[in-house]
Amino acid sequence: MDTLVSNTGTQQAIADIRNLLGDRLSTAQIVREQHGKDQTWNPSAPPDAVVFVHSTEEVQAVVKICARHAVPIIPYGVGSSLEGHFTAPYGGICIDLSQMDKILEVNAEDMDCRVQAGVTRKQLNVELRDKGLFFPIDPGADASLGGMTATRASGTNAVRYGTMKDNVMSITAVMADGSIVRMGTRARKSSAGYDLTRLMVGSEGTLGVITEVGLKLYGIPEAIKAGVVSFPSIEDCCNAAIQAIQMGIPIARIELVDVEHIKAINAYSKLTLAQAPTLFVEFHGTHAGVAEQADMFAAIAGEFGAGVFDWATQEEDRTRLWQARHDAFWATKNLMPGKEESIATDVCVPISRLAECVVETQKDLAEHKVYGPIIGHVGDGNFHVVLFCDRSDANEVSRVKDVYGRLIKRALAMGGTCTGEHGIGSGKREYLALEHGNGLDVMRAIKLALDPQNIMNPGKNASP
Amino acid sequence: MDTLVSNTGTQQAIADIRNLLGDRLSTAQIVREQHGKDQTWNPSAPPDAVVFVHSTEEVQAVVKICARHAVPIIPYGVGSSLEGHFTAPYGGICIDLSQMDKILEVNAEDMDCRVQAGVTRKQLNVELRDKGLFFPIDPGADASLGGMTATRASGTNAVRYGTMKDNVMSITAVMADGSIVRMGTRARKSSAGYDLTRLMVGSEGTLGVITEVGLKLYGIPEAIKAGVVSFPSIEDCCNAAIQAIQMGIPIARIELVDVEHIKAINAYSKLTLAQAPTLFVEFHGTHAGVAEQADMFAAIAGEFGAGVFDWATQEEDRTRLWQARHDAFWATKNLMPGKEESIATDVCVPISRLAECVVETQKDLAEHKVYGPIIGHVGDGNFHVVLFCDRSDANEVSRVKDVYGRLIKRALAMGGTCTGEHGIGSGKREYLALEHGNGLDVMRAIKLALDPQNIMNPGKNASP
Repeated sequence: MDTLVSNTGTQQAIADIRNLLGDRLSTAQIVREQHGKDQTWNPSAPPDAVVFVHSTEEVQAVVKICARHAVPIIPYGVGSSLEGHFTAPYGGICIDLSQMDKILEVNAEDMDCRVQAGVTRKQLNVELRDKGLFFPIDPGADASLGGMTATRASGTNAVRYGTMKDNVMSITAVMADGSIVRMGTRARKSSAGYDLTRLMVGSEGTLGVITEVGLKLYGIPEAIKAGVVSFPSIEDCCNAAIQAIQMGIPIARIELVDVEHIKAINAYSKLTLAQAPTLFVEFHGTHAGVAEQADMFAAIAGEFGAGVFDWATQEEDRTRLWQARHDAFWATKNLMPGKEESIATDVCVPISRLAECVVETQKDLAEHKVYGPIIGHVGDGNFHVVLFCDRSDANEVSRVKDVYGRLIKRALAMGGTCTGEHGIGSGKREYLALEHGNGLDVMRAIKLALDPQNIMNPGKNASP
Repeated sequence: MDTLVSNTGTQQAIADIRNLLGDRLSTAQIVREQHGKDQTWNPSAPPDAVVFVHSTEEVQAVVKICARHAVPIIPYGVGSSLEGHFTAPYGGICIDLSQMDKILEVNAEDMDCRVQAGVTRKQLNVELRDKGLFFPIDPGADASLGGMTATRASGTNAVRYGTMKDNVMSITAVMADGSIVRMGTRARKSSAGYDLTRLMVGSEGTLGVITEVGLKLYGIPEAIKAGVVSFPSIEDCCNAAIQAIQMGIPIARIELVDVEHIKAINAYSKLTLAQAPTLFVEFHGTHAGVAEQADMFAAIAGEFGAGVFDWATQEEDRTRLWQARHDAFWATKNLMPGKEESIATDVCVPISRLAECVVETQKDLAEHKVYGPIIGHVGDGNFHVVLFCDRSDANEVSRVKDVYGRLIKRALAMGGTCTGEHGIGSGKREYLALEHGNGLDVMRAIKLALDPQNIMNPGKNASP
């Protein structure tokens, strides 16, 4: 099953790693392909080999071997990222961290924990549940916490709990020279030196391989109340969200789901949600606090013509409701046979521009006959457009690409960012300079200072 | 009044800057001395000249001149930092940013603003007040927002609102090569590239000169309730704070003030606070929410033997109360004539270790006959020890230094940091390697990649 490897250095690296880790290195085509393609239309680029590691020290050994032979290193968690983060356009060794799945410590009294990079967020939350704690960052997929750190993930709860940027306290990483560096401490704040932790969060494997992360945890709220409510227009949804944020309601989640998504969810999840632009909301706090927040939000929603709220306070009801929201991506995919190749993209704008940005995007989609359901973490000004097309229809592909480019430029022109949470990977590299200007030179100087051979995930993010 | 300058390059740089900015460059001894010494015992080291700048472009011009002549550049805000951040051990040009005091924009609907680096936090809050907004980070001193960004400041509100790390959205900086780089956007979150904003926050002028910052703002809470309550022991204070945090009470401030500070405050601020370890607390929220938080906290405090609460809800009462807390540093200084040379230091530990760390530190102080009042932002596990000594008493100086060193090592051994908010400057450089190990090599690699001549605040933080 072994296939051709790209050059002598790579062959030598594979031999050295195999000597060390035996059959935990695979060059089987199916394994390589599975590690070289995400769920979007980013092109497939399998690595030359995949190695399944068990410890920081094993990662160190693999990195040292790759550094010696100048072979690219591509870290891999569970493969749920969406911007071609883990493809191998220059070949090399994929380091699969999914077997580094140990929860190393839970410090309940400090509300923090330390996990190996392959632990998934659901696995951690199962472990935490009977301690009365939870880890809130929820990008939808059951992603690995190392991968979520590397991509600066966020998701539905970020409006209240922040993103991975705000919740990673410390990182252990293997750098390009094979050194193991522990960044950050268990203190809640520090002014000691440069914030290497934050530099690694979002660096997408281009500065080092993240092998362990220390995370903030939160007490499971005394009360949780979720609700679904529809509005006359998508603009009304956005404006209700904007006002809730401006009023300082400490809302835990506020998700916009457009009509196309509602139709798809109803079909896929067998629900009967009103076919109208809808907000899914959730409040966390004491019983009294949650009731007060929900009342305040209902009053705001009323001003924007909201329909009747469907509230859920029991866990099973809330789970069903949010499962429907999380199924949205699959639900729309299911609706589009023959157009399964998609771009699941996201942008983020200042919240005052959100309604305008969403409405203009919808107009652009309609005008150019592109099917692109919108869903958003609107409390942060962040929304997704899932762009579908038939790859065999060159005209449609071209229209989709144009809509996509205009979406990003629209967000940037409004003071926003080309990606709120999906990251750059290989998919959005052309927009990095557009957003950061000569900031990209600074990023690249850092990259080359820490990885002069450019072996850490080359071709991604700020890597040359 | 002009004094000797250190070398030809410096003389040339001074001449070039004077050509450009005229009498906004000063080499007067009194100006240089005032810019070369902080309020602690960190040694005085005046720059060769001080230049008062008005714009990012002027900073760029000054940096380019200094870069051409390889002359050190030391940024200066209002001079309130405490770790020798703005002394000039290698001479050079001090860039005083205090006249860059324009509030560039306030986006009320997005709850953000953009200011020049010399704007102080009080100036900003005066401007924001009638918009119903405020900027919460409050290190006590009326520091400049550029300086607070550069030192990763925090203070009393950080337990609820985070530190500068969490509240700086964007930065404009002049880098060592004279390039002007805009980092970050107005979006609430982003996964686009390396987090240069967070890299600059806390870099203490060693990576670039921060000239503008974009900040998150918050709605002034509907209700604010502050309280003062004393406890039988400092351990009880800490344990009440720990439990409040673990219960998830969204407390806005929770400040420990030890008996020595209470005595000094009573004398200095003409108050009659009970002479016992005390917590100053504050709650922000709706009227109902604040009442609920205060009740929950009072119940916890009762379990640890708290005395009677003195509550304040009116602004003038709250201001008086917090002014007393903020006067603590001056109050203790006032109490110690002849010992005005002090180290105002801070450490931060995981909250579960806070009581132990404070109690062990008090024992160490008593055992070695060092006067060191303790005050702390205990919700974060962060506390200050103000170490007084008579500099002419070599034995006392030596005892103080030993206590200081043991304090830091104690915090590090507990999983904490050598500084929660004061920073490294020149004062704590020896502890940077102790805390970060080979992480310091990574910091230095970044530093030298961005500033190969080491002209940006040399001798501070991770600078060689």
